[in-house]
Amino acid sequence: MRVLSGPALAVAVSCAGGLGFTGPGVRTQDMIVDLEEASKLVEKARNTSSVFKTFPTTHPLLPVGVGFQLWGDDINVAVANIERFKPCAAWLYAPREGPVEFENWSRRIRKVSPLTQIWIQIGTLGGAKQLLETSEKPDVVVVQGAEAGGHGRTKDGVGIMSLFPEVADALGSSQIPLLAAGGIADGRGVAAALCLGASGSVMGTRFLAAKEARISRGYQNEILRASDGAVTTTRTLLYNHLRGNFGWPAEYSPRTIINKSFVEQQAGIAFGELKKRHDEALKMGDSGWGPEGRLATYAGTSVGLIHEVRYAGDIVREVQEDALERIRSLRANNK
Amino acid sequence: MRVLSGPALAVAVSCAGGLGFTGPGVRTQDMIVDLEEASKLVEKARNTSSVFKTFPTTHPLLPVGVGFQLWGDDINVAVANIERFKPCAAWLYAPREGPVEFENWSRRIRKVSPLTQIWIQIGTLGGAKQLLETSEKPDVVVVQGAEAGGHGRTKDGVGIMSLFPEVADALGSSQIPLLAAGGIADGRGVAAALCLGASGSVMGTRFLAAKEARISRGYQNEILRASDGAVTTTRTLLYNHLRGNFGWPAEYSPRTIINKSFVEQQAGIAFGELKKRHDEALKMGDSGWGPEGRLATYAGTSVGLIHEVRYAGDIVREVQEDALERIRSLRANNK
Repeated sequence: MRVLSGPALAVAVSCAGGLGFTGPGVRTQDMIVDLEEASKLVEKARNTSSVFKTFPTTHPLLPVGVGFQLWGDDINVAVANIERFKPCAAWLYAPREGPVEFENWSRRIRKVSPLTQIWIQIGTLGGAKQLLETSEKPDVVVVQGAEAGGHGRTKDGVGIMSLFPEVADALGSSQIPLLAAGGIADGRGVAAALCLGASGSVMGTRFLAAKEARISRGYQNEILRASDGAVTTTRTLLYNHLRGNFGWPAEYSPRTIINKSFVEQQAGIAFGELKKRHDEALKMGDSGWGPEGRLATYAGTSVGLIHEVRYAGDIVREVQEDALERIRSLRANNK
Repeated sequence: MRVLSGPALAVAVSCAGGLGFTGPGVRTQDMIVDLEEASKLVEKARNTSSVFKTFPTTHPLLPVGVGFQLWGDDINVAVANIERFKPCAAWLYAPREGPVEFENWSRRIRKVSPLTQIWIQIGTLGGAKQLLETSEKPDVVVVQGAEAGGHGRTKDGVGIMSLFPEVADALGSSQIPLLAAGGIADGRGVAAALCLGASGSVMGTRFLAAKEARISRGYQNEILRASDGAVTTTRTLLYNHLRGNFGWPAEYSPRTIINKSFVEQQAGIAFGELKKRHDEALKMGDSGWGPEGRLATYAGTSVGLIHEVRYAGDIVREVQEDALERIRSLRANNK
């Protein structure tokens, strides 16, 4: 959700009782604009309705988090903006140098904004265990299963159903709240994650179909159209490369909806030609996406559970209510 | 669990309130011996305690199911034995010819034992949808995620967290009960599966660490030792081939714990040499398994959740109680 989740989406999610994050944007500097806009939207929301249950007006933090990609983001810019805007959470992911980078970022962020919660996303048991050894413990750990859209582990990812409980057992003594990510797009998944021991869950793909998402119509239409994520999505670096993005550490690759760029790559067409065709498709507007399109369409395996574009607040409320209702009805069926 | 789940394990699971299945054995004929033994064990259990809540003595069926691998099993032998032993369920999987084989087997089985429930296992949304078109609807559909041990989908498998709800939406109108399989090894997973909409769940790997499993000590020790299934297990046909098993349809391959055979294959050692070394390891008894071993060690990604060998009945009871307790406590925490 690096670019796709802007201030409007993040604030809408937080307004409705979730916690919305803005991405770091294309460059770390871009977060200034997003956080300024988010601050204004929060101000406006506070003046018009009684929202942000957990963040009353007197709360010193911005009720929105910011995500970072440690391998590419500028820590000095990040820290300066965290100091200035005081987002309630900073989400750290994908260090190039391993856990020492989590530690360094956490220390720097806490120094300028001690109340900002540090969220760290991991996708492996090994990654989780390393967090126990750092001197800067995260406030929240996000456990990402192989189902997740966008960037995740290329070779050592696994379904959240067994990854989550194993990580929970390994981190249990730390008392750090764990959130489940990957493959969760409705109340069923959220309730399931709670049963696995999660304190909550993370949804990315679901919000690609939010009205407030910073996403092209063609891309969003694909989220609605695609189903059967096992077959229609794959992890591949191709679309990063077509977009000129070569920076991600080797362990990561994004899950994306398959279209002609990937199909033709598999058929043996050379990268140079694919790149030419991709760049032509960039000029085609919304028809650059879709089965006959060529543009990056990052999404998780949960695409088949998403059928309509809705306001983010409605998504949050519906998912929460559905999750609670599922737990209630199971309870009713079992004494 | 083709060979690993024998009559002792199956009857113990059913005794405790689950439903145990025997595998078809190496050859379909082998099921005669297993079902004879299972019948005796059921008789004995009924005489010594008040077990089989759902199967009173007057029930006309054997409270144990039988699994089949359609691509390799002999339908005539299978049907003759179902007629003779009346197992309560027949689990059908992996047809070579597609859904028509499910239909044919279901019709033949129902003709000789109308009360025997037909369970069909699928691992894709497409496979699930095909079941809606058959004239012989299954009584139960088992939805298998990519986490599962043993044979599953090679290329189009996906985590149960998003596969299950998508299949449930597709089959919802059929009213067929759905069970979740893959990555589930304790009460957390069972409770999560119920939240996803499952009527229940299936555990295979967990029962490899049952006292009653028909398994070598060396193999069982590996189930206890291995953790981090994302890294320590993989899907590969290598071990099938080392065992002289070349029959599975192309869509399937087994998930197995990695040992030297796989490591050396990846390092480029030729199959002939791997086979020679494997066959030597076969003579080594229990030390043929383990990280330095070479023998097939089929298991799911949930291996890291399994820490001790227990009686199957204790596993069933503990998992059921834990699942219920999780649902109760979530309910209590949410009004």
